[in-house]
Amino acid sequence: MLQELNNNTICAQATSVGQGAISLIRVSGPDALQLVSKAFVSRKGRKLEEMHGYTMCLGSFTNESGTVLDDVVAAVYRAPESYTGEDMVEISCHASPYIVSEIIRVLVDLGCRYAEPGEFTRRAFLNGKMDLAQAEAVADVIASETEASHKIAMQQLKGGFSNELARMRTQLLKIVSLMELELDFSEEDVEFADRGELRELLDKATAHISELISSFKLGNAIKNGVPVAIVGATNTGKSTLLNALLGEDRAIVSSIAGTTRDTIEDTVNLDGILFRFIDTAGIRRTLETIEIAGIERTYYKIKQASVVLLVLDYTRQDDFEESINNLSTNLSSKDKTLIILVNKIDEKPVVVTNIFEAEAAGTVTPEDDISKVCDTVSELAAASGLSPMAILPISAKNNIGLDELRTMLANSQNAVHCGSEGVLVSNIRHYTALKEAYEALLKAKVALDERQPSDLVSQDIREALYSIGTIVGEISTDEVLDNIFKNFCIGK
Amino acid sequence: MLQELNNNTICAQATSVGQGAISLIRVSGPDALQLVSKAFVSRKGRKLEEMHGYTMCLGSFTNESGTVLDDVVAAVYRAPESYTGEDMVEISCHASPYIVSEIIRVLVDLGCRYAEPGEFTRRAFLNGKMDLAQAEAVADVIASETEASHKIAMQQLKGGFSNELARMRTQLLKIVSLMELELDFSEEDVEFADRGELRELLDKATAHISELISSFKLGNAIKNGVPVAIVGATNTGKSTLLNALLGEDRAIVSSIAGTTRDTIEDTVNLDGILFRFIDTAGIRRTLETIEIAGIERTYYKIKQASVVLLVLDYTRQDDFEESINNLSTNLSSKDKTLIILVNKIDEKPVVVTNIFEAEAAGTVTPEDDISKVCDTVSELAAASGLSPMAILPISAKNNIGLDELRTMLANSQNAVHCGSEGVLVSNIRHYTALKEAYEALLKAKVALDERQPSDLVSQDIREALYSIGTIVGEISTDEVLDNIFKNFCIGK
Repeated sequence: MLQELNNNTICAQATSVGQGAISLIRVSGPDALQLVSKAFVSRKGRKLEEMHGYTMCLGSFTNESGTVLDDVVAAVYRAPESYTGEDMVEISCHASPYIVSEIIRVLVDLGCRYAEPGEFTRRAFLNGKMDLAQAEAVADVIASETEASHKIAMQQLKGGFSNELARMRTQLLKIVSLMELELDFSEEDVEFADRGELRELLDKATAHISELISSFKLGNAIKNGVPVAIVGATNTGKSTLLNALLGEDRAIVSSIAGTTRDTIEDTVNLDGILFRFIDTAGIRRTLETIEIAGIERTYYKIKQASVVLLVLDYTRQDDFEESINNLSTNLSSKDKTLIILVNKIDEKPVVVTNIFEAEAAGTVTPEDDISKVCDTVSELAAASGLSPMAILPISAKNNIGLDELRTMLANSQNAVHCGSEGVLVSNIRHYTALKEAYEALLKAKVALDERQPSDLVSQDIREALYSIGTIVGEISTDEVLDNIFKNFCIGK
Repeated sequence: MLQELNNNTICAQATSVGQGAISLIRVSGPDALQLVSKAFVSRKGRKLEEMHGYTMCLGSFTNESGTVLDDVVAAVYRAPESYTGEDMVEISCHASPYIVSEIIRVLVDLGCRYAEPGEFTRRAFLNGKMDLAQAEAVADVIASETEASHKIAMQQLKGGFSNELARMRTQLLKIVSLMELELDFSEEDVEFADRGELRELLDKATAHISELISSFKLGNAIKNGVPVAIVGATNTGKSTLLNALLGEDRAIVSSIAGTTRDTIEDTVNLDGILFRFIDTAGIRRTLETIEIAGIERTYYKIKQASVVLLVLDYTRQDDFEESINNLSTNLSSKDKTLIILVNKIDEKPVVVTNIFEAEAAGTVTPEDDISKVCDTVSELAAASGLSPMAILPISAKNNIGLDELRTMLANSQNAVHCGSEGVLVSNIRHYTALKEAYEALLKAKVALDERQPSDLVSQDIREALYSIGTIVGEISTDEVLDNIFKNFCIGK
């Protein structure tokens, strides 16, 4: 645990800026009560310094010349029973930008420091109110938009993930202490630990870490959205489809300020599952350098996606085979969900001449043709070794078949989401640390198998313990903390 | 006082929506504690129903299936010692849109009603926690952007205005009761009240109301901004000037959401004083109906403005005389501040030939010319009977002289603002009611002078009392209340 000096008192607005009834200003630090009481006049003559924790007091907040800025409620928390673990005062005032800025100015003039982003939570961590993984969960809880992402964040905040890690650390420490005990008696060449038993313990720990690592894909999908790549030849209507899918929800999504998103990606909440749609450059044969770069990126996006939507153009059926073969070549992994969309079904096909003749003769209706075309697509896909979850006729422009597509997308992930009862890793920092721990344990196993000296084996395990320790913050540096908390908002 | 049924319990988010650390959800009504306690699990096993007012409790807020939605702090207020005067719980949760909407959903499912705009303050009024003028001040306090507007709103919130009205009511009630006492003895033809004394009391009351009515101009200017009309011939750069003046501050102004503004007007805070700039149609001789309508509106705007900025075009000096005469004709009142701006001073005048010659000969620099032009403008203004506060050479396009203009504007209002120690009327509803009271008192004075029967005089005074009563809400209807509170935000 690193030591920081927390001897100053910080303040910041904790509620969001904007139109509202009430704003909350947080003050935390050893002098919180004394500093606020210089500007706070209790209506009943009570003194903040004499109040118990978890009690409130109505009064006026005044500026240096004694002018009342606002009638406020001061809520008193006493160390260590507060969010930060320090003495705290939370001032509820009218949500006027003028009042809030004046109160903060007065507090700063009285000796408070304006808080840095995430500094309240950072203090909570430094004062042992929560570990680092829990502190990180605070930001995730605030940012969570769906039930599933909220659930992961809450579990992490409640220490679920930290407990898992603690159990694993205990196991590993047991191994390491047994091995290090041998070192004390190294000249006597004794083995306190049965190597087979050690190997079993290591196997268990490695398997557990491997599970956690694997959970990241789902955890990340729940937190940041299931990545869905929209691919297809140029001008098949990919962007129209993206806009149609985002259309209704875009306003809702955008009203949640501060959620950083790639400009060409956007998320939609379908049935409680967040999807992140990725528009891609159309794929076609080209020699132009710029276009090739775009297509390279498309292949990369396909690789990252969990769901691929291949868009075909009903009016250009000659292109079907090439599009399907193209995708087949680049769809490396078979565990992706593929849905093939036959778009523009309300327009006339350009080339298929015999259909017109048949229609003129009254033997074929457009509906028949659409279903026939879907059959053809199905055969082409099978021939290319693709197994689409569905082939869906749609019109992105005229909103035909899109509800079916949404339901299909939600269903495709429901089974996966429902199975997510255990702890899920959703933070890339944790994922990276677990990967390092995993690598170190693999090395330890090899060393054990090769009957290398105990100190070498135990060093590998200590490396794994170190990596795991960085997750909950038993090992941390200012740099790591700065990186974590800089993404928090002020006042948290 | 009208009676409304308040037997249901309401809830709403009281903090603004958006990125923040904490959100606050307010619950108010007879069942507030019982309803919240159904979803709240105290960490220390305390029961909300048994807690004292002004105390808080840490715990978990759960949904119907017992899943923890968030760790929250519940703050308990007991009737009548709360904002609304009812039992209240304020729930502080993490500022996640998901959590907030879920908590509110759970509360509604448990039997709370989602609050209407301003309903908490409406209840505070109905429960006698504040009068109507104070309730209206709550919205003004929240919306106040400058020190001055904040001061008026706070004074009104603290009951300063209401006390003034109460004093006046007492005076008027004294008169009316004396007169009505005479009615009981009307057959005996006695006069309990000395008519001269009554007349004196009435004069005092009328003068006081008249003062309050006059204060509205300043009160309104402080609350909504000092109206500044920008006038001048077409293409003199009025819109450029407006944009330049708003430019820097526009972002700040716009970040205060919900402040309704006319699209062609915008406000800027200069040195603590709010100015509302009004762009006007350029004035020129025309026969076109649409343009005439625009010019009519310009004259109307000039009439409403406290400050008029006349923009002249340095490059078109032939137009100066007409512009100045035009304004002189339409500047009805002499109590407006007039500043004449000679714009485009960094461009070459089009017509003034001898200046070019002089410049070529090296005897006249552009600076000399600008000052000479300003002198000419000064003479033209004097000849037209105008007394401008200043004649200022500027370039709106290249930001020359605009700082001087800003300082000049702030100074022009400073004297007025500083003298505003007394109560100022800033609400158009109050202004209208005071005007009605004033008219009724004038009628009463006439009736008194004409020695009309006491009941006629007292009826006029009762009318005035009625109008004054509507301000603080001693007389109010659902319709009036609906109108007042519909402009509040939800949660206030």
